[in-house]
Amino acid sequence: MKHTELPQPSSTNGNSGHAPTSALTTSPLPASKKVYVKGEQDGVAVPMREITLSSAKKENGASASSSIVVYDTSGPYTDPATKIDVQRGLPPLRRDWILARQDVDALPDVSSEYGRLRANDPALADLRFGHIRQPLRAKPGKNVSQLHYARRGIVTPEMEYIAIRETQLRDAHAQSNGTPRGVVQHPGQAWGATIPHAITPEFVRDEVARGRAIIPANVNHSEIEPMIIGRNFLVKINANIGNSAVVSSIEEEVEKMIWAIRWGSDTVMDLSTGKNIHETREWIIRNSPVPIGTVPIYQALEKVGGKPEDLTWDLYRDTLIEQAEQGVDYFTIHAGVKLAYVPLTANRMTGIVSRGGSIHAKWCLAHHRENFAYTHFEEICEIMKAYDVSFSLGDGLRPGSIADANDAAQFAELETLGELTKHAWAHDVQVMIEGPGHVPMHMIHENMERQLEACHEAPFYTLGPLTTDVAPGYDHITSGIGAAMIGWYGCAMLCYVTPKEHLGLPTKEDVKAGVIAYKIAAHAADLAKGHPGAQRRDNALSQARFEFRWEDQFNLSLDPDTARAYHDATLPDHAAKGAHFCSMCGPQFCSMKITQDVRDYAAQLDMGEQQALEAGLREKADEFRKTGGELYVHPDKP
Amino acid sequence: MKHTELPQPSSTNGNSGHAPTSALTTSPLPASKKVYVKGEQDGVAVPMREITLSSAKKENGASASSSIVVYDTSGPYTDPATKIDVQRGLPPLRRDWILARQDVDALPDVSSEYGRLRANDPALADLRFGHIRQPLRAKPGKNVSQLHYARRGIVTPEMEYIAIRETQLRDAHAQSNGTPRGVVQHPGQAWGATIPHAITPEFVRDEVARGRAIIPANVNHSEIEPMIIGRNFLVKINANIGNSAVVSSIEEEVEKMIWAIRWGSDTVMDLSTGKNIHETREWIIRNSPVPIGTVPIYQALEKVGGKPEDLTWDLYRDTLIEQAEQGVDYFTIHAGVKLAYVPLTANRMTGIVSRGGSIHAKWCLAHHRENFAYTHFEEICEIMKAYDVSFSLGDGLRPGSIADANDAAQFAELETLGELTKHAWAHDVQVMIEGPGHVPMHMIHENMERQLEACHEAPFYTLGPLTTDVAPGYDHITSGIGAAMIGWYGCAMLCYVTPKEHLGLPTKEDVKAGVIAYKIAAHAADLAKGHPGAQRRDNALSQARFEFRWEDQFNLSLDPDTARAYHDATLPDHAAKGAHFCSMCGPQFCSMKITQDVRDYAAQLDMGEQQALEAGLREKADEFRKTGGELYVHPDKP
Repeated sequence: MKHTELPQPSSTNGNSGHAPTSALTTSPLPASKKVYVKGEQDGVAVPMREITLSSAKKENGASASSSIVVYDTSGPYTDPATKIDVQRGLPPLRRDWILARQDVDALPDVSSEYGRLRANDPALADLRFGHIRQPLRAKPGKNVSQLHYARRGIVTPEMEYIAIRETQLRDAHAQSNGTPRGVVQHPGQAWGATIPHAITPEFVRDEVARGRAIIPANVNHSEIEPMIIGRNFLVKINANIGNSAVVSSIEEEVEKMIWAIRWGSDTVMDLSTGKNIHETREWIIRNSPVPIGTVPIYQALEKVGGKPEDLTWDLYRDTLIEQAEQGVDYFTIHAGVKLAYVPLTANRMTGIVSRGGSIHAKWCLAHHRENFAYTHFEEICEIMKAYDVSFSLGDGLRPGSIADANDAAQFAELETLGELTKHAWAHDVQVMIEGPGHVPMHMIHENMERQLEACHEAPFYTLGPLTTDVAPGYDHITSGIGAAMIGWYGCAMLCYVTPKEHLGLPTKEDVKAGVIAYKIAAHAADLAKGHPGAQRRDNALSQARFEFRWEDQFNLSLDPDTARAYHDATLPDHAAKGAHFCSMCGPQFCSMKITQDVRDYAAQLDMGEQQALEAGLREKADEFRKTGGELYVHPDKP
Repeated sequence: MKHTELPQPSSTNGNSGHAPTSALTTSPLPASKKVYVKGEQDGVAVPMREITLSSAKKENGASASSSIVVYDTSGPYTDPATKIDVQRGLPPLRRDWILARQDVDALPDVSSEYGRLRANDPALADLRFGHIRQPLRAKPGKNVSQLHYARRGIVTPEMEYIAIRETQLRDAHAQSNGTPRGVVQHPGQAWGATIPHAITPEFVRDEVARGRAIIPANVNHSEIEPMIIGRNFLVKINANIGNSAVVSSIEEEVEKMIWAIRWGSDTVMDLSTGKNIHETREWIIRNSPVPIGTVPIYQALEKVGGKPEDLTWDLYRDTLIEQAEQGVDYFTIHAGVKLAYVPLTANRMTGIVSRGGSIHAKWCLAHHRENFAYTHFEEICEIMKAYDVSFSLGDGLRPGSIADANDAAQFAELETLGELTKHAWAHDVQVMIEGPGHVPMHMIHENMERQLEACHEAPFYTLGPLTTDVAPGYDHITSGIGAAMIGWYGCAMLCYVTPKEHLGLPTKEDVKAGVIAYKIAAHAADLAKGHPGAQRRDNALSQARFEFRWEDQFNLSLDPDTARAYHDATLPDHAAKGAHFCSMCGPQFCSMKITQDVRDYAAQLDMGEQQALEAGLREKADEFRKTGGELYVHPDKP
């Protein structure tokens, strides 16, 4: 793996004493190359990952595909043709599109008071990202949200980009990605989702216009490769990173972001609560090709020394602007935590477990006043539309235990989130809705159903849910189960949970474990929904498995490195990669090997087609019935 | 962890050159002690694991429980009061019960020709278990199956044992296991399962008599702690172990068995395909407190040098008797792989992936004759009932890829398994049915529904199913999702899949990863079914979490060691175990801490009861409507 040196912030930065990781992961994934698919609008060139397959066996005259194209979230880091310079950040891919719309001004200085304070603090010079651009903001009276454009019938380059990205060359590869035996895909059960075979730019626009999908794309985050979150698109996942008051540093967080998207995270939330989170965020955004989400109340609380009661609307507002001008693409805002709902949590097993939710609740109680994020919601919308920050309306009252699932507090807040959705939409501001949490399997579907109804089909974005509380250390699995199910039911984005959930801060390896578990959940959901083309990769991998193409099995895996390492742990020799057996059964004992004989037999019988086979079965059955339906006819006679 | 020395078989045993693990894991789990609950019948003393909790916080006058009792599969290995001597094996717990029924003879020698060969081979002396008992077999004309007793109205000690074991002191602990806030359990969605609150011995008998549950309990495996597999009981899991032609040794397999049950495996299948599998099996059975399953065709194939076409009924029959007299509790028998179904697999993506299925298929094709396990099914039943070996009717034609899920071959075989179930039941032989495999989420329920119908509610026992093929290296997760779902739908036992599936042989760590993933799936299923008492452990753990009782969180976890290690990775100090915060949020920022204020506030308002709270909410809502339903009423005014 190639590593690029990361600049070392000065040791005076006040971060923890942990050694910096000092390197970024920048190599392509095995057997993979970046391909770019051009669109019609200027500058639209959508990256995809093409996995080259070894010479696939040819059977029955049909030839297997020699490569497969998969959705690629990893950004320029896996493209050897791109020079990575984290000190400058990624190229501003969308900048020309944004400027061409002529609805933004470049501001001479940042608008946030706190932002100016940080920008002018000489003590932070060594820590600060070196190439901060002038912030962009909507011209007075303008609205720069993708929803606003969509509703005016404008197909933005972002929308075209997404249409190409979601389609993944399905049609171009339809033939070559078919299997020798013509297996394509099971019809799914989509629970009301309507996913067209061809994702057109117009379809993208229409889904955004309806509020059924969002394109998180702050005008100040021109580095992003546009992506969409909605029930009629591929299920997405989010990885949380962020330093805390206890450990971790800027370097670690930038590498964690790069690491998370390498394995497939579609967005990344920076949940930092420690020191220098303004500067950390700048580094992350400038180097992130995926949308970045935050929970601004965390930083606001830092600013008042951790005392929720000292929070003010003005300070919160300044924080929103500070982060919007840095380029945060979506904000978790817990505007649904209303004073009246707070007592509903008093009898809960685990009370309020959302950090944001509990901060707002504490403030409400301390002041005996309604949540300022609720009372100032219209003003927040004005900020959001000036930068195109999307709402991720936080579920501050989500259940934190199985016992608290689907309770009055949770659903009361959900109704309010639906009400706020309409208000945001009235401003043409994009909205998704956050969801739980901890929910036993049989109560998951109700969450999806009620969210769709209460929130008018705004995209749902859930944390898990965890399906049991008994396995700390394995909550990527307890929640991966729930995530797969709710993804199937219609959830648009799944927020990952790492093995360290409830226990400690995730390391890089934990981030990977969480991302892979959630890629599995999202993909299993796509398959179950019958997302067109979703089964291609399963088919390609299974075919490789059947044909003992070990290298292809590794390379087609969500995690080629681990697949290969596990194989090599038992059979390390290079020769074993070509072996027509594996360590589970050994050379004499392989069921797949034996199956080849079955195939030859069937061919002998001229039973090439399923119909013929079924007819054969019926004949046998008829024969069985004619002989009186006896179980044993001529036992052991030829 | 305490370790006991394992005898070192001589190095002449022909096993691979791998170093033996040379130690068995025998210590109790953290904060846990073994308790034994006595029944009415002689010798019935059911082990359970009591986890002691640290002084739980008292609130609202109610006191939290000081301990919680959980189902314990780990056998005497976790009881420091028991002296473990693997050279002698475990005490023959059931022997008196079996002999008291006066329906077995102790044979002067083993009945199997191959068994005698092995017993008399001096070269195996060092390898052989040293205290082989005379085999027991039903007296002529007798049937020693639990199903036979059940149908004659006899409540065996095994049944009483199971009733106590499944009930887990629910009633005795109902009060103390309630939470301070009285949270008990969500009503489940049981998909037609009918689980009574009190599991009585008579209920166990009735379920067995109906064929809806089985008690795998060979008269030659008197060491087992009886357990039951059925839809109206706790969902069980199985772990596969076994050496292969490529690697691993006896020592490793015995320790893997002990390791698997330590983490919760309810049964263990010995799938050895390498050398000395007769001797390995003896060691495993003599030391196993859980039922042992095998796939006898594997050993039969070894005996003919790996050539399926050389298999004969006589040789297979001898193998069944050989293993039955060693004490194998259930046999996977692929009697449903009929000649007529084999061509149905020809057009599959991955053909026949069941080893057993492919062996039988190959034999059928080579001889152009019907499967001998099918044609000799009645004779197999005669063997089964002479020792009380249960059928695990193998799904030899299960799908091996998403593409092949729920196809004609799979369901044709399932119909035959249903037919065979009736034949086995006519002999009072116990039956469970094996199921897939690889199935996308939306096609899982059909598997359960069809199995229940085709197989007359005989218990279902599935491998996963894997919900996608794209993640080799993580198939404990791809399949854990499917396992949880099918367990919820009614599957009685879930066969684990380890991270090494499709790639290599599982190590001890892989066995643990597979077992824990499947304990999660099984428990999530119990919760979703509404199994009485299932939520106790979730409640206890969540309460501990809420009250910052870190030690209790670790100890209540399915894997206390990992939970503790993950916590300590961030906050290693002992003091942090008492801290009212964790590394995720730091001391100032903990939502649970803030929630205590909410609770105080609610108490202030005299809102002690949920009803009052809901009334309060309604008042607020009424007030909201009265003021005209405006979103913002008096923003920012007190």
